[in-house]
Amino acid sequence: MARQTPPQPEEIAAGSITFEELRLAARNHAMPLEALRYPITPAGLHYLLIHFDIPSVDVAGWRLSVDGLVERPLELSLEALGSRPAVSLPVTLECAGNGRALLEPRPVSQPWITEAVGTAIWTGTPLAPILKEAGLRPDVVEILFTGLDRGVQDGETQDYQRSLTLDEALREDVLLAYAMNGEPLLPQHGFPLRLIVPGWYGMTHVKWLSRVTALAEPFRGYQQAVAYQIQTTEDGPMTPVTRMLPRSLMEPPGIPDFFSRTRYLSPGPCPLRGRAWSGQGRVVQVEVSVDGGHSWRLAELGEAPEASPYAWRPWTFMWQAAPGAYDLCSRATDETGLTQPLDASWNSGGFSNNAIQRVAVVVE
Amino acid sequence: MARQTPPQPEEIAAGSITFEELRLAARNHAMPLEALRYPITPAGLHYLLIHFDIPSVDVAGWRLSVDGLVERPLELSLEALGSRPAVSLPVTLECAGNGRALLEPRPVSQPWITEAVGTAIWTGTPLAPILKEAGLRPDVVEILFTGLDRGVQDGETQDYQRSLTLDEALREDVLLAYAMNGEPLLPQHGFPLRLIVPGWYGMTHVKWLSRVTALAEPFRGYQQAVAYQIQTTEDGPMTPVTRMLPRSLMEPPGIPDFFSRTRYLSPGPCPLRGRAWSGQGRVVQVEVSVDGGHSWRLAELGEAPEASPYAWRPWTFMWQAAPGAYDLCSRATDETGLTQPLDASWNSGGFSNNAIQRVAVVVE
Repeated sequence: MARQTPPQPEEIAAGSITFEELRLAARNHAMPLEALRYPITPAGLHYLLIHFDIPSVDVAGWRLSVDGLVERPLELSLEALGSRPAVSLPVTLECAGNGRALLEPRPVSQPWITEAVGTAIWTGTPLAPILKEAGLRPDVVEILFTGLDRGVQDGETQDYQRSLTLDEALREDVLLAYAMNGEPLLPQHGFPLRLIVPGWYGMTHVKWLSRVTALAEPFRGYQQAVAYQIQTTEDGPMTPVTRMLPRSLMEPPGIPDFFSRTRYLSPGPCPLRGRAWSGQGRVVQVEVSVDGGHSWRLAELGEAPEASPYAWRPWTFMWQAAPGAYDLCSRATDETGLTQPLDASWNSGGFSNNAIQRVAVVVE
Repeated sequence: MARQTPPQPEEIAAGSITFEELRLAARNHAMPLEALRYPITPAGLHYLLIHFDIPSVDVAGWRLSVDGLVERPLELSLEALGSRPAVSLPVTLECAGNGRALLEPRPVSQPWITEAVGTAIWTGTPLAPILKEAGLRPDVVEILFTGLDRGVQDGETQDYQRSLTLDEALREDVLLAYAMNGEPLLPQHGFPLRLIVPGWYGMTHVKWLSRVTALAEPFRGYQQAVAYQIQTTEDGPMTPVTRMLPRSLMEPPGIPDFFSRTRYLSPGPCPLRGRAWSGQGRVVQVEVSVDGGHSWRLAELGEAPEASPYAWRPWTFMWQAAPGAYDLCSRATDETGLTQPLDASWNSGGFSNNAIQRVAVVVE
């Protein structure tokens, strides 16, 4: 998407979504915000972004090919992968386009608001020992991952493909995952196998994985070199989207209005709760504002599920709610010092918008 | 929604969706159309319409109350319900608002296109014996079902409530369901208990069920008397939405374009497949058109999962695809003679729009 001309405000005004965007919003599921109550997101509530179609995979005939610049190409069945050493890791995944629909002018693609996130316990076998077994040749610089999902984007017919640098691919927590929350992968989450690269935005975790290929040159395919690039002006430089920026979300308190989703609650003590994550480093601080971001107070931080460095941390804040209308916000800061901005910074693909969430609440 | 003034075309033109509608589309999941390949919809792909929030239910403290005009009020734990006779039934559920976003002018609510559907095997215990055990008084005319989901709609704070006439409630296939596809209900599908009324649109199948109340007067609450009413003119009569009208959907052939969802495929024999259902009676015929509904040919009908009278039937049609652009359609007819219209008929709430689906395909 990064190549597109930034849309003009008069063409795509905030609050006016195209039919094509609606069609994407229908099939790509967000996590309803009340699901922030669960440390591990239940089946069916984790966000989903599926570029093309969910493939139908006959696992009897499926093999993972490990090929390219290797000494010993491998063909691994699901059974063979399952008999290798297994690792289980709670990991928070977020779509790189989360927050896109709040940008002005709005980049036209999947129109996420703030809920393209979820946390699961992924079980799989580490990738690095498999690459070592295959024997990487000395000139290998990147590992390419190919999924079985196939379609057309910006006029280019393609299999879904993303690469990692060799250093990143050899990290010990990079998994070939065949289970999610203790069950085989659901079709929409990549059955039978997907890549998990903890800390990175969702596009990296290639689903329906069929090939792992060692390359001597950096991969320049569509999903790597055209999409998932930060470009802030039409002809400006492009910076690849990689790891998740810090973000915090609040479980909306009270009860909702069906249509406006404004929240209603009674005066009195009201615990505010949410979760915060970052792919850059551990979240070390969450603040809460009840006045739309003008003033901030520290929330109490809890521990991530199984103390995973790659999963969201819960936070709580006791609010004394007096009658009135409020704009509730929370803000995460990670150990690298990165924090969430009050306002989004625009880029042509609508990536990495981690501006603070605003929850409209009426106390009465 | 039925009370609202029909929106004017200049306010809500087709192709321009409001931000509030997008927010609903993000949290209320549609079934991606390729999931039509599964006779039983996998977890997380079944459609979801949640008026308010998904409640958090502690099953240890949860009881189903059976009260109102009964001789012996009951309080039933999940364990007690599970020890009663169990019935499992494949049932297709469809939202009454499916197709709403295709109406012109578009009624403003959850903006479904065509995919608000899914089929599951629901397991539960029949309602009728429980009502008999409680002892309905002679003046009972309706049974009211109350869920734990609470919120505000059109300014009215409410628990979600729907009623059935006594005749309908006593049908032997009306279930208090605690399992879906052999697993406890997921939170978003009504854990720990929901009503299943095979054949009816989704609003009837009250989730997070907490009370079953015998009434001597017809229930006139919001979700019964205001919403879910067909009203074709502003001051015209209102007819309640009840059973699903016949509908057929096609699994889109070929591969998709990411954004437009136009399908691309090569010339040659192309099997077209889909599923068809009706809550009025068994589907007896499905026809296919490859020219946007000008000419029709019969598809081959298969059997519903477990031959359930309440689940969709698969259909197939062998298409000889020659190069060109096509508008593929399918049309279901049920045993009562009801069939799908080519064009939608408008009503203020956008209910029961079973006009034929159109799938844009390019053969090249």
